Amino acid sequence: MSDEPVDLSTGLSCPLPISEYKRILLAHGGGGRLTNQLIKSIFLTVFNNSILSSLHDGAVFDIGSTRIAYSTDSYVVNPIFFPGGNIGDLAVNGTVNDLAMCGADPLYLSVGFIIEEGLLIEDLVRVVEGIERAARRAGVSIVTGDTKVVDRGKGDKIYVNTSGIGIVFEGVDIKPQNVRVGDKIIISGKIAQHGISIMSVREGLEFGTTVESDTAPLNHLVKSILRVTKNIHMMRDPTRGGLASSLNEIAEAANVGIFIIERSIPIDEEVKSACELLGFDPLYVANEGKMIIVVPPSEVDIVLNIMHNHPLGRDAAVIGEVVDSHHGTVVMKTRIGGMRVVDMLTGEQLPRIC
Amino acid sequence: MSDEPVDLSTGLSCPLPISEYKRILLAHGGGGRLTNQLIKSIFLTVFNNSILSSLHDGAVFDIGSTRIAYSTDSYVVNPIFFPGGNIGDLAVNGTVNDLAMCGADPLYLSVGFIIEEGLLIEDLVRVVEGIERAARRAGVSIVTGDTKVVDRGKGDKIYVNTSGIGIVFEGVDIKPQNVRVGDKIIISGKIAQHGISIMSVREGLEFGTTVESDTAPLNHLVKSILRVTKNIHMMRDPTRGGLASSLNEIAEAANVGIFIIERSIPIDEEVKSACELLGFDPLYVANEGKMIIVVPPSEVDIVLNIMHNHPLGRDAAVIGEVVDSHHGTVVMKTRIGGMRVVDMLTGEQLPRIC
Repeated sequence: MSDEPVDLSTGLSCPLPISEYKRILLAHGGGGRLTNQLIKSIFLTVFNNSILSSLHDGAVFDIGSTRIAYSTDSYVVNPIFFPGGNIGDLAVNGTVNDLAMCGADPLYLSVGFIIEEGLLIEDLVRVVEGIERAARRAGVSIVTGDTKVVDRGKGDKIYVNTSGIGIVFEGVDIKPQNVRVGDKIIISGKIAQHGISIMSVREGLEFGTTVESDTAPLNHLVKSILRVTKNIHMMRDPTRGGLASSLNEIAEAANVGIFIIERSIPIDEEVKSACELLGFDPLYVANEGKMIIVVPPSEVDIVLNIMHNHPLGRDAAVIGEVVDSHHGTVVMKTRIGGMRVVDMLTGEQLPRIC
Repeated sequence: MSDEPVDLSTGLSCPLPISEYKRILLAHGGGGRLTNQLIKSIFLTVFNNSILSSLHDGAVFDIGSTRIAYSTDSYVVNPIFFPGGNIGDLAVNGTVNDLAMCGADPLYLSVGFIIEEGLLIEDLVRVVEGIERAARRAGVSIVTGDTKVVDRGKGDKIYVNTSGIGIVFEGVDIKPQNVRVGDKIIISGKIAQHGISIMSVREGLEFGTTVESDTAPLNHLVKSILRVTKNIHMMRDPTRGGLASSLNEIAEAANVGIFIIERSIPIDEEVKSACELLGFDPLYVANEGKMIIVVPPSEVDIVLNIMHNHPLGRDAAVIGEVVDSHHGTVVMKTRIGGMRVVDMLTGEQLPRIC
């Protein structure tokens, strides 16, 4: 496979976007710099419309007098069963969370399966039950679906796509462009659990106890917060690419600097050790039940109070703030007191983590 | 692989649906009997809700005072480029058509890619351009998306999922349960073109001329019809499993008999020869730009007149009617005058046709 840069804009009949690579790499799906580049250089260029360009977790538009949020995600996680869930739970929670991050109440989901010939029906049933269990927990309905089967060796057991529709809460306006200097950055709980859970199964690692994926629906927590204050500037669930990549996306889209303090970031001791053992930086490891929430200083106590009283926000903490320097960049005060630029994920740390 | 029937309801902790097979076969994705069985025995059982149970091409529900149609489809067609289109066009037209078949005006689409590592960026761009071209032709916007990359040998170039949202036209109520004895069955044009186009590329066959896929958006044609009459009982696009499987689905869901006349069914001479050569029954070969429309006798001339004046309905013809005998079954008067039961597709005639 040749990785040399190539300019696709030459020799073809219409103006084409430019990509650095000739072929798709695993890293193009990693949620970091290359995914970002693919989105900007190809998808946003060819699908040129304002709703897509907002670069939110989902699209937001009006139907009649109702503000709708709409999102989709495909799941290719390997293995399909892991401590704390399966690809089915993950697919529902992922789309529910994308809608919740738009300030919406998720209502209806679609499910599309791409199944590899030979999958045990029993395994399919476990996945389908995972989907229904997660849908019930989130309070959403699976209303439409599709099933395709591909020949052996052209898939990997099962891939699941979900899309979802939600109604944006009245008076709520959440988008990266609303982020302001002085805003505080809150994370809802301990980071890096999903990624380490998957890696421990994949590598057959044994720690003291099993690290469980944090896959969970955040919509009820979001609803509780929005019931008390609508003065929320931005929310995002740091999945692929981890906390670091999501903060970079926000800094870039809002054209602000983000400053975080390493020792404020909640992380489980076991997960931290596992990261050290595996050579991973936990800032880049995927979460599937955590959210970043950016709020004006006036709202911090109100929001933290709600979060600390909710099972999915018990360990919520302020980890930093939005600053008027190093625009588009995330800077972290490290545990030992130094300053470090926390870049977007480059390359692919954990392929097929979600 | 073992194919012996197995009863999954035993030995597990909760009541589980029963399936005839232990493992997923290619035929479970063929759009025929096994797909139907999978939907009924697993999906409808586990995802138990009234919207899903309507067994329509899409879900229909209200948001505020607006009636919404919502649908999803994954595309795994092989090869990804074929005469008349590519997997991108197909994915947009397929979801647009599912929404149109619900009597809706399609507005917004999501796109999810599952890409195999190593895909040429150039090929991705061609697919993305196919999506945009088809979206523009149908008048819909791609508003949200997702990209995953899987390792080599765990996918096949690119799989595309689309989901879509449309607004159901006022006063329109289209569902299999509305079909009545005496209704006439119209097909919008020549059948079996998509399937034969794909097979000719796959098998490297050369006919006199190239058989092109009929992939096309039917929403404008549907809109023209509904502008003139809303008295339409049912519409369906006969994709996987072909005309025969779609008519069987309607007969079963409406609990009526369907009677069709073989010599009334429009088919291209070249496609007919290709079917004979390949040993395919054209009634089971996929279409991607055709629709079945079931109307009361009073509406036949009105509908045919609109169709004959539209490029996608030029060859529209009445092919049969709904009868009060052999309920749940499709019977055809053959070209040589005999009567034949036209069953749902059994097994898998053309894997990965869409």
